[in-house]
Amino acid sequence: MTDNPLDVIDFGDGQPSLSLLPVDALRTAADHCLTRGDAALLQYGADQGDVGFRESLARFLTHRYATPVSAEHLMVSAGASQALDLVCTRFTQPGDTILVEEPTYFLALEVFRDHGLRVVGIPLDHDGIQLDALRDALTRHRPALLYTIPSFQNPSGSTMSAARREQLAEVSREHDLLIVADEVYQLLDFGTAPPPPLATHVHAARVLSLGSFSKICAPGLRLGWIQGSPALLEHLLQSGVVHSGGGLNPFVSGVVNSLLDLGLADAGLDALRGIYAERSAVLCRALREELPMATFVEPRGGYFVWVQLSSVMSASQLLPIAAAEGVGYRAGALFSSRDGFASALRLSFAHYDEAALLHGVHRLARAIASYSTSAE
Amino acid sequence: MTDNPLDVIDFGDGQPSLSLLPVDALRTAADHCLTRGDAALLQYGADQGDVGFRESLARFLTHRYATPVSAEHLMVSAGASQALDLVCTRFTQPGDTILVEEPTYFLALEVFRDHGLRVVGIPLDHDGIQLDALRDALTRHRPALLYTIPSFQNPSGSTMSAARREQLAEVSREHDLLIVADEVYQLLDFGTAPPPPLATHVHAARVLSLGSFSKICAPGLRLGWIQGSPALLEHLLQSGVVHSGGGLNPFVSGVVNSLLDLGLADAGLDALRGIYAERSAVLCRALREELPMATFVEPRGGYFVWVQLSSVMSASQLLPIAAAEGVGYRAGALFSSRDGFASALRLSFAHYDEAALLHGVHRLARAIASYSTSAE
Repeated sequence: MTDNPLDVIDFGDGQPSLSLLPVDALRTAADHCLTRGDAALLQYGADQGDVGFRESLARFLTHRYATPVSAEHLMVSAGASQALDLVCTRFTQPGDTILVEEPTYFLALEVFRDHGLRVVGIPLDHDGIQLDALRDALTRHRPALLYTIPSFQNPSGSTMSAARREQLAEVSREHDLLIVADEVYQLLDFGTAPPPPLATHVHAARVLSLGSFSKICAPGLRLGWIQGSPALLEHLLQSGVVHSGGGLNPFVSGVVNSLLDLGLADAGLDALRGIYAERSAVLCRALREELPMATFVEPRGGYFVWVQLSSVMSASQLLPIAAAEGVGYRAGALFSSRDGFASALRLSFAHYDEAALLHGVHRLARAIASYSTSAE
Repeated sequence: MTDNPLDVIDFGDGQPSLSLLPVDALRTAADHCLTRGDAALLQYGADQGDVGFRESLARFLTHRYATPVSAEHLMVSAGASQALDLVCTRFTQPGDTILVEEPTYFLALEVFRDHGLRVVGIPLDHDGIQLDALRDALTRHRPALLYTIPSFQNPSGSTMSAARREQLAEVSREHDLLIVADEVYQLLDFGTAPPPPLATHVHAARVLSLGSFSKICAPGLRLGWIQGSPALLEHLLQSGVVHSGGGLNPFVSGVVNSLLDLGLADAGLDALRGIYAERSAVLCRALREELPMATFVEPRGGYFVWVQLSSVMSASQLLPIAAAEGVGYRAGALFSSRDGFASALRLSFAHYDEAALLHGVHRLARAIASYSTSAE
């Protein structure tokens, strides 16, 4: 993959490389859970998810979040995307306004579009979502919810400060605002933990925290969780699709329960954090060397580097030139609720090893040089 | 479970008994697929589902439906309930009218309610949905879709005739009516196959057929499929939750791919058909003996017997009396879009062995006798 000049290096892919996916650990876990012969994991499950799995998950999160998490505040989901879809089904009506960060995860914007929601973006600063802009928006809108990605944000890589998290929870209380926190990168720091997740506020504010095994273990599992107060979870549980399907992904819950109990989830996550830290450092060093005109903040976790080109450049116009050089990325405008970020690129370092990252940046630099020349 | 008089025997549960769930087969399949070391099943999958799995599934369905099924007409789902939810998200708007059979699956009604849909029921006769009533409804409504359960219907146990299926497809063409066929019981006949599934009409009419491994293998897998024309599938695929999650349940697809390839899905399904045939026969014989005043049509497949009590009896009022005797069922009114079927009960024979079925009917007879006495 790294040596063949014909292979496109697509920094746009927000997915791990195949070599990082824990096939052996999952074989061990599947064998462990199926050898115990507990048929319950093959049955229609409890709507909230198997209680044994939720208890294992609560222990895992208590340890990793370094703050107590209780099984009764957890509902099993089929991944954060499914969870976000369910939240929209149960907490919004078409035509409702919702608030997002500007920029935000582009596929969340697609989910909101599917639910007929009007999206209003609130800008970020260095400490996260801007509270003045949020308060101002709340004088003009009565949003059904605010969608935020507090740690190692997608796409910006930025992390909301501890103080800002407290203030955001306070705004939620003042305005009875439902906060949907996409915390799928929370555990993916490169050595320094981010501030405690918004999940720690589920007792005292209207917060639903979405977690997932996609980024910390394997996306193909389609397994995640929603953390919230019993009252908010109860509203989610009163859903036809949950009642009919009988709990989301009981079989995979059973397999991952074994993964957690055997310590394989912890070991795998720690390995991933080390690898992504290295990959991020390699990518950022190459960007500084090869694209000295670009600006970015080096991430401290997660998947992404958010690169600002010169404001006269269009990331969308650069895309075909980059493709001709054999490199891809996600153009910034995708992540905007209002056609912003025309000169920004989202680069993911999760999918490639060191050599491929270096090749990719080299190709990107060539594309930018070629684009700059043609624009002159 | 069968001998303890303290255990409630709940004919309301539409789920298999734990002893019927193929733990060993799934251990073999999981080991088979994970030993091959293909990490792709742990990655974000193709939106439509893994092509290798869809090809295996197409072979399985071609054999079991006895009619050609192609992988390009299949999309992987996370079960029929999730599929129905996705169909509603992509093909309906809140306030739209949809048509259902009267009676119909009560949890499908919850999914429709979650999507803000107005539900109009079309009565069944011995051959399935009544076409005169359907045509009449089409003069008064422009429904977004018709939801039907053609074979071994939930709750009535009835099966749409071959001629009626052809006529229904013709109505779909005439009126450009989207038909969503819930075919999860299609393969669960007791020896005589029902007419070909509505899935056979996906080339020539606007039909989406929902299938699932829940009833033919294990509900906890949360794996199913949607069969339809490429154009209809494409509309489903243009969904934020599919784009973001990257295909529904890739890991379980991989495990079930091995189950199919090893012949374990076929063997398991044939065993289930034999067991359910016996259980149905036992339940029906007991009903004839102990409840001679009740009427029902003995099912030829599926999970359910739909019992009509005397029209002066209320299945809802009987429920607490039955509970006191240690027996449960689903009251008929649940399955109505308009408070019909007050004197009907849905009994499932899938969850209990022969002895429990006999105990349960005996308890039900006692409850009815007690209710009749108290009403005199």
